[in-house]
Formats: sequence, C-alpha cells, structure tokens
Amino acid sequence: MSLLSQTLAAIGPPSRTAASEADARQALLTKPRGSMGRLEDVGSQLAGIAGSCPPPVPKHPAIAVFAADHGVHAQGVSPWPQEVTAQMVANLAAGGAVVNALARQIGASVTVVDVGVATDLPDAPNLLRHKVAHGTADMTQGPAMSRAQALAAMEAGIAVASALVDAGADLLVSGDMGIANTTASAALIAALTGHEPAKVTGRGTGIDDAMLAHKTAVVERALARVDRSEPVAVLAQVGGLEHAALAGYLLGGAAHRVPVVLDGVIAVSAALVASALSPQAAAYWIAGHVSAEPGARAALAHLGMTPLLDLDLRLGEGSGAALAVPLVQSAARLLREVATFDSAGVTEK
Amino acid sequence: MSLLSQTLAAIGPPSRTAASEADARQALLTKPRGSMGRLEDVGSQLAGIAGSCPPPVPKHPAIAVFAADHGVHAQGVSPWPQEVTAQMVANLAAGGAVVNALARQIGASVTVVDVGVATDLPDAPNLLRHKVAHGTADMTQGPAMSRAQALAAMEAGIAVASALVDAGADLLVSGDMGIANTTASAALIAALTGHEPAKVTGRGTGIDDAMLAHKTAVVERALARVDRSEPVAVLAQVGGLEHAALAGYLLGGAAHRVPVVLDGVIAVSAALVASALSPQAAAYWIAGHVSAEPGARAALAHLGMTPLLDLDLRLGEGSGAALAVPLVQSAARLLREVATFDSAGVTEK
Repeated sequence: MSLLSQTLAAIGPPSRTAASEADARQALLTKPRGSMGRLEDVGSQLAGIAGSCPPPVPKHPAIAVFAADHGVHAQGVSPWPQEVTAQMVANLAAGGAVVNALARQIGASVTVVDVGVATDLPDAPNLLRHKVAHGTADMTQGPAMSRAQALAAMEAGIAVASALVDAGADLLVSGDMGIANTTASAALIAALTGHEPAKVTGRGTGIDDAMLAHKTAVVERALARVDRSEPVAVLAQVGGLEHAALAGYLLGGAAHRVPVVLDGVIAVSAALVASALSPQAAAYWIAGHVSAEPGARAALAHLGMTPLLDLDLRLGEGSGAALAVPLVQSAARLLREVATFDSAGVTEK
Repeated sequence: MSLLSQTLAAIGPPSRTAASEADARQALLTKPRGSMGRLEDVGSQLAGIAGSCPPPVPKHPAIAVFAADHGVHAQGVSPWPQEVTAQMVANLAAGGAVVNALARQIGASVTVVDVGVATDLPDAPNLLRHKVAHGTADMTQGPAMSRAQALAAMEAGIAVASALVDAGADLLVSGDMGIANTTASAALIAALTGHEPAKVTGRGTGIDDAMLAHKTAVVERALARVDRSEPVAVLAQVGGLEHAALAGYLLGGAAHRVPVVLDGVIAVSAALVASALSPQAAAYWIAGHVSAEPGARAALAHLGMTPLLDLDLRLGEGSGAALAVPLVQSAARLLREVATFDSAGVTEK
C-alpha cells in the first residue's frame, strides 16, 4: 500500500461531538452570541479537529515552503528569470525572505523543501531535499509531469507533514516558491472548478495586460488536451511539483489530525486536488487569506471556504497564511480562557 | 491653556521623508513590488509616525478599555440590562473578558478606565478611575452631557494615553465597554457623516427587527435638535463618556507620535469627533477591523481609512483592534528584516 493510499485511508472526519460542544460553549462565554464572528467558526473547527473542547491553543506553528520550477516558464508567462526560484530558496534558507520575518513574528519554524528546483542547490540549514525532477516539463508541449513524478512529489509533501508533526508542530502552514507557478495554479483551478481560464488567470507577481493575455492563452492551450476526470491526472498534466507536494502536505496534516493554514492561490489550487482525492480532508484546513489573484477566490468558493484575511497580498511563500496564525491561535484561546456568564457573574440578556 | 488645547497644538504631521524612504525601501526588498498589499501601506505609515525608516517594531502594545453608561438605555435600545456594564468592567479587571484573552495572545497590557459607569465600582487591579458622571443623560430628552463633561472625559482619555506612553507603550489600542453605546455611535456617525440614521444604525450586540426600528427612531429623535456645526457640541449632545474619552485617547496618541489601532464602531465614531478637531491626527491611526455594525463602514469611508480585518466581529472591548496588532507589528518587521535584492543576490525582473 503506497504512502498516499495509507494517508488517504487514515483521514477521518473531525469530531462532531467536540465541535458541537464548542458551539455550545461559545454561547456561554461573556460576549453576545456570535459576536466574535469568523473566529467562533474557527474555534469550533479546531475543537472538532482536536477532538476536545476547548481545543488546545496551537503553540508550535511550522511553515513548509515547497519550491520548484516550471517548464511553462519558457512560454514567457513571467517577467522574472527562472533562476530566481533557486536564489529565493537561498534567501529563504538564510532567513531573509518575507515569510522568514513573518515566521519570527509568530514564533514559527520555516522549512524549505526542494521538490523540483531546476538547478542543484547547495546545502543550507532548514533545506530539505526531496527533488523529484529538475523542474516540470512545459505543459503546452505535453504533460508537466509523469504520473509517477506527481505521486512522488505528493508523497514528499506527506513525508514533510509527518516529519514536522513528529517534531512537535501542532499547526501546519503552507508555503511555496516557484517562478511561473501562478500559471500552473490557474490551469489547475480552471480544470478543477470548470471556470474559464480568463476568469482565473491573473497577474501573478505583477505582469502587464499583454503578458496577461498571453498567459491566459497559454493556460487555454495547455487545458485543451487535459483529461479532467481524475485529479492526479490533472495535476500531472498542468500542475507543478510544489503543487503536488502541497496537496500531499494538506492530506498529511488531515491524516495526523493537525490543522493546516492555507496560503494563497498556489495552496488553494493544490487544495482542489487534495480535496478531490479526500473530500473530508478539507475539514482540517483553514483559509489564511484570499490572494489578489482571481483564481484564489474561485478556488475558495469551490472549496466552500471563507478566508480570514483579505489584504491584497500576492506574494506566496506562506506569507498570508503566516499572518493568519495569530487569528487561529486566538480562536482557540477564546474557548479556553474567556469567562462564562455564570463564572463571571454577568447577567445574560 | 487646557490639556485639550495643548494636545491639539502638539499634533504635527508625520514625517513625509521617512514615509517616502519606506515606500522606496519596499521596492528594494526581495518580493515583487506591492505584493504585500495593505501591509506595505501600514509599514510606510509607521515609518512616517516614527520619523525613521525602517520604523521600530512595536513591542509594547497597550489596550485601554473606556467604560461608561448611557442614559438612552432607558429608551429600550438594548436587550442587556444596564448593570452589565459594571459587571463586565469587573470581568475585564479580573482578566476574564474576550479582550483579556486576546491581550495575552499578543502580550499587551489591558487598562480599564471608568469614565462614566452608572454605579460606583470596587477597586480592582488595572482599573483607573476617571469617572466624569454616573452615566450620560438620555439624549432623547436633552444633551447627553454638558460641554464641560465632554471636555473632562476627553481630557481623561488624553491623560490615559500619556500615562500608557510614559509607561513604555509604543502602540495604543482602543477599547470600550458600555451597554447601549452603539446607539450613541450611530447618532455621532449620522451627525458627522451626514448619513441618514437608518443607514448607520445597526443591531449592536444582537437585536431583532422591531428593536432595530425603535433604535433607529430613537437616534432620529435625538438628532433632530443637534447643532452639527461644532464637533464637541455634537459629542456632548449625543455621544457617550467613553466616546469622548476615546476621542481624547486618539488625539493623545497622535500628540505623542504613537500609532493607535482603532477597534470597531465605537472607536471610529469617536475618531470622527477627533479628526474633526484635528484632521492630521488621523495619520496616526490604523483601522484594526471593520465591525459588522453598518455605521462602522460609513465612518471609515468618511475617514478615508481601509480596515485590516473584516471578520464579522461585533463585540467591542478592543477585540478587533487587538487581533490586528500582529499585522501592524509584521508591517514594521518586513521593513526592518527582509533582505534586499542586492544583499540577497536575487535577480530583479
């Protein structure tokens, strides 16, 4: 039995009992009913995931940044040269990237995972090597990955989730780095939600109208020959190695009953693949933010998820998810620490 | 010269030079331009406030919760009995309220300030006594406060801001507690933005359609005789003692060049008063969130402010502002800690 099959088999529903207890407890706390809005939903979700009410406050968030390159970069879909992926991996490993600063703010670890960077990388602290290929192939010319490569990258993501949980992580955060990866995300989102490429293809890290029109045409061309009937086939045809690894990471979190905070458009496109393989896995995920990329909103709507933040971010790396971590911690803390009407001697309306 | 006059005279514009340096620095950091969205705006704002780029990361947030009662409660605008204000003050002082839990999450102090609770309160740690009156008068029968009371409450708020800054606070957070205070907020917002009461009066902590219609009529009745030409007159006619204190607190933060994070509808209605007295004070304020109360959105639009969070919160106490504090800290941290393209050896597009 493959690691993926074992992982899928290990995913069960969260505890309905604990989530209901949390809903009931929210009404006893010294605040008007429902007045903490979205945080109350997250609190009850965390109780269901933990199987206890109140849920523990996550204290050890871990961010995994999956890095890979994309053959479709050759089509001119990004203004950034491909070597920026490897350069940013070095920056991430050295602690100089945005997500490193945000991780220090929340006391999270950052692990960078090479699942498919085009060049061979020097050793660095916090860099894990799970390279499946030196980048994907160009999706406009044929499948981006073989099925075996897609499965290997998924299993790398599962292994990373397991290793982080084994090391004490109680909240997983999704991150990514890969020049041209919003093109793969757009293709995955179009294929898995049924939206037209023009609706879900965006400016990524910042491209002009002409390049956006070209990028949309590239996505359309790649999708023309995609068999949409099976999620791993879609992933292999138009996804990236980091998308595959992220899909595995999300499933791994669910299998370990550890909540996963999703970052932006790369994460939610991977979540579409993962939820197609295991619909109940989505109950373990929390949308950290909605990226400025149009596909992010479409994917979240398809997943039925409401993001915590909407700050017009379009960076990736796990930055939006890292910013949402204190909100998730706060949601659990409210259920644990706020006095009840009874205990505080406050009159109910 | 009164403390209010001194405070208004002390408010100067933030440093345009430091804010411009921050804008320029954002473009050098290893991320696509503008990709950190709203956080980049906040970072540049913090640089302007501090007069240095990069700005310091705020390490000592202080939350002040101004508590008071409202004569208009007698009109049946809230389902909660008035004694809940005093009971919640006790809960806040004992550390059992929502904002106390959120303060522990972010390492903030909580100071509760009695500026007008209807009953006399027992001593408690972290409870400051600045009681100006035992609640306001019923605004439907006459002015809620005398002009002298409104000014005294404003000066209490200024004094609290000064005391917190003197004690080391580098980020002020606004909080409030007062049964029926969304009614006063709606009246202030209608008077100071020109919107109809029906547009800015909401369900507060949760009222039904019939009580909402009644609450709106109460606001309309109170506003009928309000002289809108002068902000302190408006405040005295229909505001609350905590609104007055908050207006002073916001001005005090600006005078000390310390950023202030605004909570929900109570804070933004007080901000309308304060910005009418000192338009440039608003440059020191950051909208932590937008409350579910409709007046909050109208007031923020009038102030030209974009909130950081939108989580359907409607609690008050400073809860939404406290949740936004890590975002503010992150905004400063990015400018301080993220590597530049040059320093990290990353190729620019």
